[in-house]
Parts: sequence; C-alpha cells; structure tokens
Amino acid sequence: MKQILILGAGRSASDLISYMLQHAEENDWQVTVGDISVDTAEMKIGGHPRGKAVYFDCYDEHIMRRHINGADIVISLLPPGMHAAAAKIALEYNAHVVTASYASKEMREMDAEAKRRGLTFLNELGADPGIDHMNGMRSIDKILSKGGDLRSFTSFCGSLIAPESNDNPWGYKFTWSPMNVITAGDGGARYYKNNKLRCIPYHRLFADPQIVHLPGFGKFEAYANRDSIPYRKKYQLDDIPTMIRATLRLPGFCEGWNALIQIGLTANNYRIDGSEKLTHREWVSSYLPEQGGRTLEETLAQFLQTDQSSELMQRILWTGLLSDRPITRENGTPAEILLDLLLDKWQFKSGDTDMLVFYDRQEYQLDGELYEHISYMVTKGKDHLHTAISRTVGLPAAIGARLILQGKIKTRGVILPLDKEVYDPILNELEELGIGYSVIENRIAKSQMMYS
Amino acid sequence: MKQILILGAGRSASDLISYMLQHAEENDWQVTVGDISVDTAEMKIGGHPRGKAVYFDCYDEHIMRRHINGADIVISLLPPGMHAAAAKIALEYNAHVVTASYASKEMREMDAEAKRRGLTFLNELGADPGIDHMNGMRSIDKILSKGGDLRSFTSFCGSLIAPESNDNPWGYKFTWSPMNVITAGDGGARYYKNNKLRCIPYHRLFADPQIVHLPGFGKFEAYANRDSIPYRKKYQLDDIPTMIRATLRLPGFCEGWNALIQIGLTANNYRIDGSEKLTHREWVSSYLPEQGGRTLEETLAQFLQTDQSSELMQRILWTGLLSDRPITRENGTPAEILLDLLLDKWQFKSGDTDMLVFYDRQEYQLDGELYEHISYMVTKGKDHLHTAISRTVGLPAAIGARLILQGKIKTRGVILPLDKEVYDPILNELEELGIGYSVIENRIAKSQMMYS
Repeated sequence: MKQILILGAGRSASDLISYMLQHAEENDWQVTVGDISVDTAEMKIGGHPRGKAVYFDCYDEHIMRRHINGADIVISLLPPGMHAAAAKIALEYNAHVVTASYASKEMREMDAEAKRRGLTFLNELGADPGIDHMNGMRSIDKILSKGGDLRSFTSFCGSLIAPESNDNPWGYKFTWSPMNVITAGDGGARYYKNNKLRCIPYHRLFADPQIVHLPGFGKFEAYANRDSIPYRKKYQLDDIPTMIRATLRLPGFCEGWNALIQIGLTANNYRIDGSEKLTHREWVSSYLPEQGGRTLEETLAQFLQTDQSSELMQRILWTGLLSDRPITRENGTPAEILLDLLLDKWQFKSGDTDMLVFYDRQEYQLDGELYEHISYMVTKGKDHLHTAISRTVGLPAAIGARLILQGKIKTRGVILPLDKEVYDPILNELEELGIGYSVIENRIAKSQMMYS
Repeated sequence: MKQILILGAGRSASDLISYMLQHAEENDWQVTVGDISVDTAEMKIGGHPRGKAVYFDCYDEHIMRRHINGADIVISLLPPGMHAAAAKIALEYNAHVVTASYASKEMREMDAEAKRRGLTFLNELGADPGIDHMNGMRSIDKILSKGGDLRSFTSFCGSLIAPESNDNPWGYKFTWSPMNVITAGDGGARYYKNNKLRCIPYHRLFADPQIVHLPGFGKFEAYANRDSIPYRKKYQLDDIPTMIRATLRLPGFCEGWNALIQIGLTANNYRIDGSEKLTHREWVSSYLPEQGGRTLEETLAQFLQTDQSSELMQRILWTGLLSDRPITRENGTPAEILLDLLLDKWQFKSGDTDMLVFYDRQEYQLDGELYEHISYMVTKGKDHLHTAISRTVGLPAAIGARLILQGKIKTRGVILPLDKEVYDPILNELEELGIGYSVIENRIAKSQMMYS
C-alpha cells in the first residue's frame, strides 16, 4: 500500500483530496491529510475509508517528521515559504514531492540530491503557475515542431467571479488570498516587447490595461504580472522578441484600482498611528488635497480628473471608503485597513461561483507567412467547496502525484511541468475532467500582429 | 579611572572621539574605541595616551561581551539595528548607554531593568534625532512657561553641501548614508495640519515641497519626514493642531528627485534580471513610453511635461542616466543601479564642506495675541574629518556621556533628551562649541500664520 501525505486542507485542497481518494482503492493508496485544523481535514475526507485526517503544523519540525516519515509522496499546499522545509524532510525519508507553488532557490538546490535518491520533486503544478506552463509549452512545442519561428508569447490568467455571481460594480470578489489581491503588483512588472525590456513601476501598473477579447466571453482587462523576464529562459525562448505574462480582470477594475493606488490606499510598508480613531472618510480625506469649500466627493472627483457621476466614482463610493464607518484596525497599514473594508464588500459568498480564465497567444512565422496561435479556457467552480480555484490548483497536482506513483513520470530531481512527459498526460486528463482549452489558429497579415 | 567604550569609529564618530579624549585627563577617563577596522579607530585616536583602539564586531557576541564588561559607559554609533544588542549586554555589566539613534521597542523595554540597576540609557542624542529634540523642547518649554497656547510645531532639518562646495545642478552630495538618500521617504509621510491628519504617499512626497526662508541663507525646499504623528505624544502636545517634521534640500532638488520617482528608478523591492547587460540609457528607456520616432530625450521631456532645455532636464541629463555607459550591477534593484551611478556624481570629496541646517517654527497664542517663535542654525564642517555631520551627531552624544559620568544627568532608565536637565547643559555647551541657534520672536497677524 502506497502512503500519500497531503499537507494543507484549505480552499484549494478540496479537489486534490477528492481526486486522490477516488483513485485510492484501485491503486491501493492510503491518503493522509494533515492540517492545523483536523476538523477541516476530516470534513474534506468525508468519512472515506482510505482517508485519514491528522494534526499538522508546518512550524513544528517534530510533527513534520512524524508524518513525512513513511510517506511515498508528499503533496504540499502549505504557504509558499514552507514547501522547502517539508521537501528537506521528504528528501531524508525518500518521499517524492509535488507542489503548486514557484520553486524557491532552496527547493532548486535539492535537485542533485533528489536525483541521487531517485526522487521527483515536481513544482509549479497548479493553475498559475501550472496549467499556464503546460499549455504554454504544448503550444510552443507544437509550433516549433512544424518549424515555426516564434515572434511573441503572451499569457493571461485571472481568478474571477462568474457572470451569474457578479453583483458589484468592480466585477470582482475574493476568490483567493485577499491580502495578495490588495498588494498585487507592488513590486511593479517587467517584460519584453519587440526585443525591448519594459519596466512598469507600481504607481503606473494599473493605469493602462491591455484589452483582451475571449471568443464567446467578451472583453477583459490585463495588467502585467510581475517579472516575465525569466520566462524566456524557462521556456527556452532566449531570444523571443515579446514575452508578456499578465493578469486578467473584468473591465473597469483597473481604472478603479489605479485610483486607490494614486490616492495611496494600498501601501503595506508603514502603519498609521491611531488609525482606530478615524472613520474611513477621515482616512481617505487625509490623502487628498485640502478641500477648501468643496465636499470630499468633489475633491476626490477632481483629484481623479473625473466627474462625480462617473462609473469610477460610483465604484469607489460603493466600497464605503467615503463613509463615516469607523476603522477598527489599530495602527493599521493602509493595505490592512482597505482589506478590512473589502473583506465584507468583496466576500465570496456561499452560492457564488468563481471562474478561472486562461488566454494564451503566440505569433510565429512559417514559410514566409505569419500565424497566430490562440488557446483559451474558461472554467467555473462546481459548488462552494469545489471552486474553479480548487479544481485548477488541486487537480493538476493530484494528476501529477498519481503519474509519479504509477511510474509514468520518470524524470527525477527538482522539475517543473515543462516537458511533454509531464504536461501531455496531465492536460489530457484535465480535458477529460472538463478543464480543456479551445485552440484557434489563423494566418494573419503583418498589420494584425499585436507585436512587431 | 572611568572606562569609556565607544562603539564605531566611522564618519560620525570623529568629533565624539576627539571630545572624549580632550576631557579624558581632567576626568581620569580611559577611552576605548572599538571598530571592525582597528586602523580607523587608531587613526581617529591619533596616538592620544588616554585612547585605545580595539577590534570590535557587533555580530560577535563574545567580542561584544569582552569589551562591554568593565565599561562604565557605552557610546554606541553602531548600525541602528545593533544598539539594543549592545545595550542588553551593558545592562548585564552595569554600564550606562548613549546612542544617537531612535530608541527601538527592544531598547524601550529595558527601561524598568535599567532603572532598577541605576543606569541611564540615553537615546536619540545626535543631530536628527537629537539636536532637533532638544531645541524643540527648549522652545516648547519657553512658550508654555509664559502661558502660551501652542498652535503649531514645525521642525526642518537637512544634511547638505555648503555653498562653496556646491558644484552640481542638484545642490546635493552624499554627506551621509547614500542608500538612505536613495530610498528616503519610501514609506510616505504623515503629519497633522490644522487638526487634520495628512498622509502623503511616496509617489507624491517630493511633488510639492514647502519653501522655507532662512534669514541670511536664502531659500530651501522641504519634504515631509516620515511619521510626525508620534511627536505629538513625545513632546506632550497631544492636541496641537499642526505638527510637521520635514527634511530640507536646496531648491530644485525635489522636482528632480520626484522625476526619478515618477520614472520608477528609486524602487528597492525588486531586482532586474540581467541588469548588467543594459546601458543606463536602455534601462531608463524601459520605464518610459515607447519612443516611436522621437529621441529618448524628447520622450523623457514629454513624459515629465517639461521642455528639453528646462533645468529639470539638465539636472537629469547631468547624472548620466541617459548615457550609453553600461550598468555594472548584476541583477540590481533600481535603487542599487541609481546608487552606483550617483556615488560618482554626488561624491563628497576631500576638500568639500558639508552643512547642517536646522529650522524650527512654533506659532502660539498669548493674551489674545499671536506670535511666531523661530529658531534656526546653520553649521558647517571644519574639515573632511570633522564634518558638520560628525560634529552635530557626535558632540551631543559626547556631552551627554560626560554629564552622565559626572553625575549631572540623574534620571535613570531608557530616556530621550526631552527634559531640561538633559537638553539645557547640552545645548549650552554646543553653543560654546559654535553650534548655537539664532532665535527670532515676532507678534504676527492672523493672516501671517502658516497654519490656522
């Protein structure tokens, strides 16, 4: 009997746990789920005879060792900073490792030892990073194998709310880590466009979003996603003129969020002494020019160079930022105060459906002609537990773990899902599970190229 | 014989060391100077029979203990984060402590134990913090003692280059920690103005400097200095309507620095992968709008909404930011790349003279009339070793240490130089040493109030 240890039973673990339990009988697996909340782990196992819930604290090395010792594979959905600690112990006890997070330097340094011990540490196998890597590499391999010369690689992804649950003027709810949404992009963004490095500082990141049309799904906005530069090397496209990764939002979001950044409400690097003595209105007013005889609403509209009746103003007023509601956070950072407010307003409620949107576009040259290769996918959550996030983060990791245990992934060491051996069976099975891409391939004129 | 231990022999220690040695014979002191560079410590002691240079590494607890054990007083000019570690050991071995840095939480927590042991841990006794505290409290106490009702407290301080050494269009050189200059203000600023909290985010901090006139010294610019809010409590002016601390620069600096922030060149929270492959011109170009047919100079001028021939453009071009000189820093942060460039351009050279400028202004009401109380001081360095920074940081600490050793400062525990017992003798002696304030007191009309 193979021992599977799943670390973390939170929101993105539901489908991972379900999948491993569904396949447990036929493969003779024992599935142990460790979480700081044993109740959550038990709830997600749902009494399955092959499942076992245990108390797990990733800050307690003794507890970590106790459970990793004896596991054949460890699937870690721990906080990003904790994977490497778990992987170090897995190395010692000869267990494979699967994560849905970026491979840290510490993780990558275990490559030689993992190889030596015949272990596979498969990282970045979730939604983004994960599905984006796999579909990107499948597209690239397809184009290269027929002799195409890649001119641009652009990849867009967004965790959004489904149209039927979209009931607010931002078109947004917290479908994943709220604080990450508040501070998103605070390190600016870098990418390559037409062979030129482009750097976008944080205070301009949301100011000029790119518009993306998805056939059948309408318009989305995109802002550049952190650092796209290393992806040239990662995807072995060292000289590709354009390499852009970006995040999708519904139209209007970026204009609204840019306004909050311009006002100064998203900073997380200082505390406001005595914030608990202010109302939200007083707080926002402290960032705006002096009012003189004007109302705060007039002052804000003028600061944002918009009309008081504009959609932008309506969006901001809807948040309650200009309300007399008191701030409860003591000595909070701006980001914390904004978080407290938006947690209510953007709550992902029971009954709400989330939606993951992926859109990739490559341009390439072949036999003197230009082509675009577009692949896109929109997938919605099934219910409040089996959300689109849980499915797109958990299922790739689950399938990857199964393939390792069944000996179908043979590459050893610290790897990413960039090779056909890994991405092909995973993408195929995801498609069977209803998470499949649509592909459009067109010959285009030079004037139709997004980048030149 | 009393044992004095000075930790750190760097730029701001010269006058501290000279002062303690000058007073060593008459007080029967032994002055030990510890530094990671024994040569520097020896050079600054200059063969004085009462001085001794020792190797000191504040990251080596054994070495710390060895030297602190036996000292009567420890004067720490270590990096700000290391004072508390030295103070903890001083507590154990019953030594007083003097620092020129902000009292950290860790430091303040030693208050009860220091009191119990009859020790004085006197912090924030340098230039800023230090001289600003003492002159501020002297002004406040003077106004309060005659029954004045304080309406505003504003305090400005700048470490600048003297007019005779000002030979560049920024009016600035690195007279103190260069990296602190590059990242200055990155946490924005907060203050109170007319009973209203004002918050200024980083990307607007240098955009609208206040102009300050110093009688006989001309115009300066001021940008708000971090968090002024706690100073209401610190100075026991809990309800004062206006409390602003700000940093002084020569005219034009803020406009130039604001341009660098708007472009995005001062960020220190991300690295540019492969920065060593770029020229400065390519790097700056990556932050600016696409050029189309324009030159980079035209693009930059348009981005900054200025003319190509403006002083602002001349200031930026002078730095070499648009030159074809290659970047040497590997995977640098923007702040690091900018630092490397400016280290050459803004070098404080042998023969250069620095200048500390202090300007305080209080407004108060007395018997139905309004008054302004202005105190200001401009002090220049004597030579390249005895700079204005070294004198204004080191001499207050030196005098404070002498007063503690002579039993003239009797308050025990972790304290700041806010009480008359401390600030009066120190300010008086500083004045004898040529570091004295000029004071102007005027009755003013309501219309002349800077704040109302």
